Amino acid sequence: MAEGPRPKRRREEEEDEKPGAAPHDGAAAAAPFPLAELRLQRVLRESARDKAVFLHGEVTGPSGEGTDAVIILEKTPFQEEKLSDLLKKHVKLELQMRNDIYSTYHLYPPPELSEIKTTVVFPATEKHIQKYLRQDVHLVRETWEDYTQITLPFIQSQSFSVQWVYNILEKKAEADRIVHENPDPCDGFVLVPDFKWNQNQLDDLYLIALVRRRDLKSLRDLTAEHLPLLRNILREGEEAVTKRFGIAPSRLRVYLHYQPSYYHLHVHFTALGYEAPGSGVERAHLLADVIDNLAADPAFYQKRALTFALRADEPLFHKFREAGRA
Amino acid sequence: MAEGPRPKRRREEEEDEKPGAAPHDGAAAAAPFPLAELRLQRVLRESARDKAVFLHGEVTGPSGEGTDAVIILEKTPFQEEKLSDLLKKHVKLELQMRNDIYSTYHLYPPPELSEIKTTVVFPATEKHIQKYLRQDVHLVRETWEDYTQITLPFIQSQSFSVQWVYNILEKKAEADRIVHENPDPCDGFVLVPDFKWNQNQLDDLYLIALVRRRDLKSLRDLTAEHLPLLRNILREGEEAVTKRFGIAPSRLRVYLHYQPSYYHLHVHFTALGYEAPGSGVERAHLLADVIDNLAADPAFYQKRALTFALRADEPLFHKFREAGRA
Repeated sequence: MAEGPRPKRRREEEEDEKPGAAPHDGAAAAAPFPLAELRLQRVLRESARDKAVFLHGEVTGPSGEGTDAVIILEKTPFQEEKLSDLLKKHVKLELQMRNDIYSTYHLYPPPELSEIKTTVVFPATEKHIQKYLRQDVHLVRETWEDYTQITLPFIQSQSFSVQWVYNILEKKAEADRIVHENPDPCDGFVLVPDFKWNQNQLDDLYLIALVRRRDLKSLRDLTAEHLPLLRNILREGEEAVTKRFGIAPSRLRVYLHYQPSYYHLHVHFTALGYEAPGSGVERAHLLADVIDNLAADPAFYQKRALTFALRADEPLFHKFREAGRA
Repeated sequence: MAEGPRPKRRREEEEDEKPGAAPHDGAAAAAPFPLAELRLQRVLRESARDKAVFLHGEVTGPSGEGTDAVIILEKTPFQEEKLSDLLKKHVKLELQMRNDIYSTYHLYPPPELSEIKTTVVFPATEKHIQKYLRQDVHLVRETWEDYTQITLPFIQSQSFSVQWVYNILEKKAEADRIVHENPDPCDGFVLVPDFKWNQNQLDDLYLIALVRRRDLKSLRDLTAEHLPLLRNILREGEEAVTKRFGIAPSRLRVYLHYQPSYYHLHVHFTALGYEAPGSGVERAHLLADVIDNLAADPAFYQKRALTFALRADEPLFHKFREAGRA
């Protein structure tokens, strides 16, 4: 799995290269990758939304030995200046379906308008291949009983470290990044930019509110007792984002994850226009809804089933499967 | 803004059609849309992530008058069975960059491997054009009072046509596309592939369940009375997708939109691995959660606030703003 087993192959490849053939960009050069001779081993992953596919292939060398390659194919965004050509110069236009004012077609454009971005990793190690390999994802619908009998024992058996959270709360790290804090030990929190946001543009704004108290793992621990804390986070967090970044509350998505990636209660603030990973209905819970649910029923999250997705290789998924619940 | 100003154009179009040219689905027919004669007016919106573009164009009729059309071009996901051809039969492969073990290329495939899904709305009204035009988006948190005082009067004042839904329910269109149906007039529904899915690959599987009864506009109309209907949709819909497409229920996201794009109750079925547009927490409501909410409180959706996003140019957003609620 690790990079370990195959470093030698890469060094051999580099030694084979002719220094004189270096292209203008100064990188080590070679003939174009022999794409047509690639033997397709399997599809590692595909993304229908992104129109991309990740392939594992093998190239046979002169002495008959196979060398692994990873190939990423991705269709490219439309270019505005080529749209007229695309509409006019199609090779074929096939009617697929017609209903009322709507119709759909298959349009086949000429090659020069159909560029596919192709990325080659060659030679590829096992680690490269694993990196792009998709695992199946399954929905689990966790009842309160599932939580107490499967999920909670699992969380407790793992020693998930949240030292990095404590470092922020104690100002041992990222103290200069704090956007807002409420010092109350019970109903207080710290708001910081998420690691995923580089803060260069507001389009993908992403902040995290970390609660000060350390006894709340997730949504499942919340009761009406926590309403003051949750209302503080929503109101003060929105105000702080408006003040610092000029983004109005109506342009912010404020939510919790279930399952979270770490079991110290936290709330996500993302720009509404940014479809942040994890903002889908199968993982995100709007803080405003959580507050209303707890106000209507103080034990809402100790009663109700919650749906979430797990990768087939995750230990928690195995626990659900062993229990016959997935 | 409303559909109102231009209904005549649509009737004229229908009268012009030749009955003999009806395609197999029985819908009103016509010659293929004259794509090559379209005059491109502007790009309404583009999505670099989805590799899609939304265009406003105009077609000139025999008497010289222009008629608006909306054209949606979207590159299609890769099909597994065509990957080998794609690697071998490219027309050209251009090296773009090479660095260490990484290189990138432009690959130009032959037309038959470069299908573009093309959706035509013709004739298009101003409303269709506005629908696809990119705009700022704001969250609204709609209380039940907001619904009765702002949203419901607005819906009733608009004459949103759902004739295409009735065409499907009455088998006047898309009859050959029905994946499953339950004929019960009260608790029955029809399951069909969504327009957005070309059915060539399962990665972006997308089906819609349309309820037979015509008195349910949205989530806001649902009470415990509708639990049999909703449970039928969830159970039979999942079974039908497993049977026809081999996709287990744990790999399906089943949800409603609020606000929906049309006010005839329907449920979305999408592949879990596909981050379908509209599957975000600010629009999607898992059918399993809706069922549990109604089982716990028959009037849940007549009591609780619901959050959704509206574009700044949408008439409903103006209504909320006028009322001081956005």
